[in-house]
Amino acid sequence: MGNITAKSSRLWAFLVATYWVSFVTYFLLWRGYKHVSELRADALMSPEVRPQQFAVLVRDLPDLPKGQSRKEQVDSYFKAIYPDTFYRSMVVTNNKEANKIYEELEGYKKKLARAEAVYAESKSAGKPEGTRPTIKTGFLGLLGKRVDAIEYYNEKIKEIIPKLEAEQKITLKEKQLGAALVFFTSRVAAASAAQSLHAQLVDTWTVSDAPESRELIWNNLNIKFFQRQIRQYVVYVIVALTIMFYMIPIGLISALTTLDNLKKILPFLKPVINITALKTVLEAYLPQIALIVFLALLPKLLLFLSKIEGIPAVSHAVRAASGKYFYFTVLNVFIGVTVGGTLFKTFKSIEKDPNSIVDVLANSLPGNATFFLTYVALQFFVGYGLELSRIVPLIIYHLKRKYLCKTEAELKEAWFPGDLGYGTRVPSDMLIVTIVFCYSCIAPLIIPFGVVYFALGWLILRNQALKVYVPAYESYGRMWPHMFLRLVAALLLYQITMLGYFGSKKFIYVGFLIPLPILSLIFVYICQKRFYKSFSDTALEVASRELKETPSMEHIFRSYIPLSLNSEKVDDDQFEDALSQASRSGSFVV
Amino acid sequence: MGNITAKSSRLWAFLVATYWVSFVTYFLLWRGYKHVSELRADALMSPEVRPQQFAVLVRDLPDLPKGQSRKEQVDSYFKAIYPDTFYRSMVVTNNKEANKIYEELEGYKKKLARAEAVYAESKSAGKPEGTRPTIKTGFLGLLGKRVDAIEYYNEKIKEIIPKLEAEQKITLKEKQLGAALVFFTSRVAAASAAQSLHAQLVDTWTVSDAPESRELIWNNLNIKFFQRQIRQYVVYVIVALTIMFYMIPIGLISALTTLDNLKKILPFLKPVINITALKTVLEAYLPQIALIVFLALLPKLLLFLSKIEGIPAVSHAVRAASGKYFYFTVLNVFIGVTVGGTLFKTFKSIEKDPNSIVDVLANSLPGNATFFLTYVALQFFVGYGLELSRIVPLIIYHLKRKYLCKTEAELKEAWFPGDLGYGTRVPSDMLIVTIVFCYSCIAPLIIPFGVVYFALGWLILRNQALKVYVPAYESYGRMWPHMFLRLVAALLLYQITMLGYFGSKKFIYVGFLIPLPILSLIFVYICQKRFYKSFSDTALEVASRELKETPSMEHIFRSYIPLSLNSEKVDDDQFEDALSQASRSGSFVV
Repeated sequence: MGNITAKSSRLWAFLVATYWVSFVTYFLLWRGYKHVSELRADALMSPEVRPQQFAVLVRDLPDLPKGQSRKEQVDSYFKAIYPDTFYRSMVVTNNKEANKIYEELEGYKKKLARAEAVYAESKSAGKPEGTRPTIKTGFLGLLGKRVDAIEYYNEKIKEIIPKLEAEQKITLKEKQLGAALVFFTSRVAAASAAQSLHAQLVDTWTVSDAPESRELIWNNLNIKFFQRQIRQYVVYVIVALTIMFYMIPIGLISALTTLDNLKKILPFLKPVINITALKTVLEAYLPQIALIVFLALLPKLLLFLSKIEGIPAVSHAVRAASGKYFYFTVLNVFIGVTVGGTLFKTFKSIEKDPNSIVDVLANSLPGNATFFLTYVALQFFVGYGLELSRIVPLIIYHLKRKYLCKTEAELKEAWFPGDLGYGTRVPSDMLIVTIVFCYSCIAPLIIPFGVVYFALGWLILRNQALKVYVPAYESYGRMWPHMFLRLVAALLLYQITMLGYFGSKKFIYVGFLIPLPILSLIFVYICQKRFYKSFSDTALEVASRELKETPSMEHIFRSYIPLSLNSEKVDDDQFEDALSQASRSGSFVV
Repeated sequence: MGNITAKSSRLWAFLVATYWVSFVTYFLLWRGYKHVSELRADALMSPEVRPQQFAVLVRDLPDLPKGQSRKEQVDSYFKAIYPDTFYRSMVVTNNKEANKIYEELEGYKKKLARAEAVYAESKSAGKPEGTRPTIKTGFLGLLGKRVDAIEYYNEKIKEIIPKLEAEQKITLKEKQLGAALVFFTSRVAAASAAQSLHAQLVDTWTVSDAPESRELIWNNLNIKFFQRQIRQYVVYVIVALTIMFYMIPIGLISALTTLDNLKKILPFLKPVINITALKTVLEAYLPQIALIVFLALLPKLLLFLSKIEGIPAVSHAVRAASGKYFYFTVLNVFIGVTVGGTLFKTFKSIEKDPNSIVDVLANSLPGNATFFLTYVALQFFVGYGLELSRIVPLIIYHLKRKYLCKTEAELKEAWFPGDLGYGTRVPSDMLIVTIVFCYSCIAPLIIPFGVVYFALGWLILRNQALKVYVPAYESYGRMWPHMFLRLVAALLLYQITMLGYFGSKKFIYVGFLIPLPILSLIFVYICQKRFYKSFSDTALEVASRELKETPSMEHIFRSYIPLSLNSEKVDDDQFEDALSQASRSGSFVV
């Protein structure tokens, strides 16, 4: 009897704690949403000129009427609607070819600079005339005639420049696609245009916010309205299948890549594989290696899939990929580990009664508390340790400096810290939130670990974001609504798991928990209604703030011309006529 | 064996027919959507000046900052965003009181005109001086002192006019609410403003299309964002309960209003009720009478509920009510009659396995074919007969002319045909579509009836709509997407019923029908994606067409001033200061 009372009062405490955690989370999320929304408004209304605030992206241009060029079509359409604020348009072109030539040119330029650096180094080292570096012209520099490197690269560059110029002209004239960037002279006009329906047929003249020029995915701009929809659904199905059944291809691959098979396919590996010690290790770990390779490649695969959807901006694609990754981690790491091997055994019973997943989850939670405690601790000891010391990039940098980099530019490139990597960082933090939520009542010891993890994260990542990493683009806080939804999803999972936990304990007051998931749904609805639209669109009151200086429209326009088409030799007249129809190709970002 | 082959080949023919009907419907609906969309664009881009195209409705104004009036608040906000195209604003006021006084005034004016007409008539009829009409001043003109009618009304009018003027001033100054109408000098600016997010907080400064002034529901304009959401959901729940369980209150009412109870409550009915013949009839028909009264009041109830949702325009409320009525008719008339009494008997089994509703429906379809054949025939013989001859309004008009109407204005009012009444007409036509669809294969005889119904409908209602009825407002084809959805819902019901029908016949190729409902969902998705937005918003390319004449902004602005506040005595200066903050009250439309 005393035992029952003790158990019951413990469950009551858990119940109260669940409410407490939920309400604190609501409060924090509400404050967070409000705060980020204000930050976004502040950033958007900043008096500095930002080219993307003056531009819109126009996709799904209708078929060209006879006797009209794309540029005339776009210009006449927008001049009629915005007689006062329309500035100029830039028709998107297919410049794959131009990009290829441009990259070739840049490659040779880099190699020339490197060869010159090598030559200069050899000069200073005692011999005043130095040794001119040589290369072989054949496959990968391994075969073919040996020639003087500097002369060879100079020749190549001279050869390519006119080729690039010719290609630029062809691209601008003949490779125009059915999309355009349109520039306005006022921020309000651009912000309002991006939110308005322009054509009576909704699948033509689709106008949307222009992303920053550096994050535009040019290859996606020509994808038509319904194709985008179809691609999106196809990708969703592929991702759902990947998340649920990723073990099958990995299993197949591990089954096929046994050592015997490897020997047959790659006979030159035979001597290596025949070493007994290595053989044993390899045989034991081949499946794990396949899994590790898959997990390492998964974020890239998801980003690739998100880009295939037809999304025009990298930041948006990263958000989409990050969302997919979150579902993967929660389903496979959290639920997978918690339920563990039993999931496959109880699969049949879950299939019969899908609701039993909650019970299964609730029953296996307590047993796994230790694992996840360790998981969270490991994340902050190892993860943040590596992050703060940046020991791996440091080693790589020094190796590169020693053996690879010869010129200043190469050194800078090696040192460049890159992006913070929201795509994988956000979902893994969301996973820890989920874990901490779900174990907060059953194993409250996880709470200090969670607190330490996020406190350290705040200190360390704030520092890293502000002082180390270089953002590749600015999305003005658009990641937040996305994180918000996942945070509430985590909270909901927690509440439902608790419901299952109390149910499995035969706690008769479990009904008191039922309002919580409903409350969470209402909370999400209210928050999204109140704040979300200000994240997906730019509020006009924000866009109407005064600018510090009169914007240079020429500068804004030029910032969107892709590098491969931005030739300085093209005279102004030609520029007017041709380059104003230019665009950057996707090869920079895809 | 021969029997089985014959049955199977008949089912095959049904299956092919189902596909045929579905594809023809898709084709027609697609053409219809496209056609209506073009008609809408033509109507919207017409070169005539339409005040609502220059205005937007702004709701959810934030709290007033200190020392600022509502008008200053609205003006400064919109001037900052639209420095070139903002014209003027009109703050919505609570003019219930002014409306009451105005209606009183109008009532007395009407009565005065009537009294004068009676006096003039009495003069011409032999006696040159005539008899001046008199009335009693007390309750309903039945009690009190007898006075000269013309003098009395003149006095009353003289009394009320200053009262109205005082109330107008108070209303304009002190009864301002948190909503406004904002006028722009260009159609594009207004159309674009109605589609754009204005404030960073989505639940403030909500901007939407301005409805025509004659269809604005002024009482709803002050309802706040989240209150509108809550009201909507509450109304949905109430309507769902009404549709499903309307028999319960009717049953209760019929049970309570037995003759014995009536005698107790309304003792003066006793002598009437005690007549034996009447008593028998009444006792038999009281429940039916309750049902008939309920059915007659239902459209009004649904319209009332739709208005309570907080919808700002009558046309929108009518669409909402019509949608609700459609679900009521399909559920209660179609499914109710088809499944009939068996539904209540099989209710338990349906509860256990909700899918069995399809089987029950499919099994009882054939037996009810005759009933619905009669139903459709009745609809066009009686319904269109009454409609075309307009015999009921004619009788009412002549009765009114003989006994009630004295003045020209009263005669006109009696003759006025009113609105076409989309709110009930559309759902009942949709019901017939549903019936014809569902019986088209099983009882193909219904098809000619359906064809005749809609062919006659086209001829008759086209004539009535163009030449008889006077539209109360113009919604520019916004009823179509609404009808479209219900038509596809009818098609879907048909396809699912056929699936059940084939299933119940143990037809092994029933699987061939499964793609059809999926196809319908895809079809709806594509159509809504392609066309819907152009119905909910005004495409800018349409709004940017040239106008025939320069719009008179003063005239546009004045067209929105409610009659009760539109005093001619108010001088121009006061008008600038006060009336520009006016609004019309809801009492005209609610």
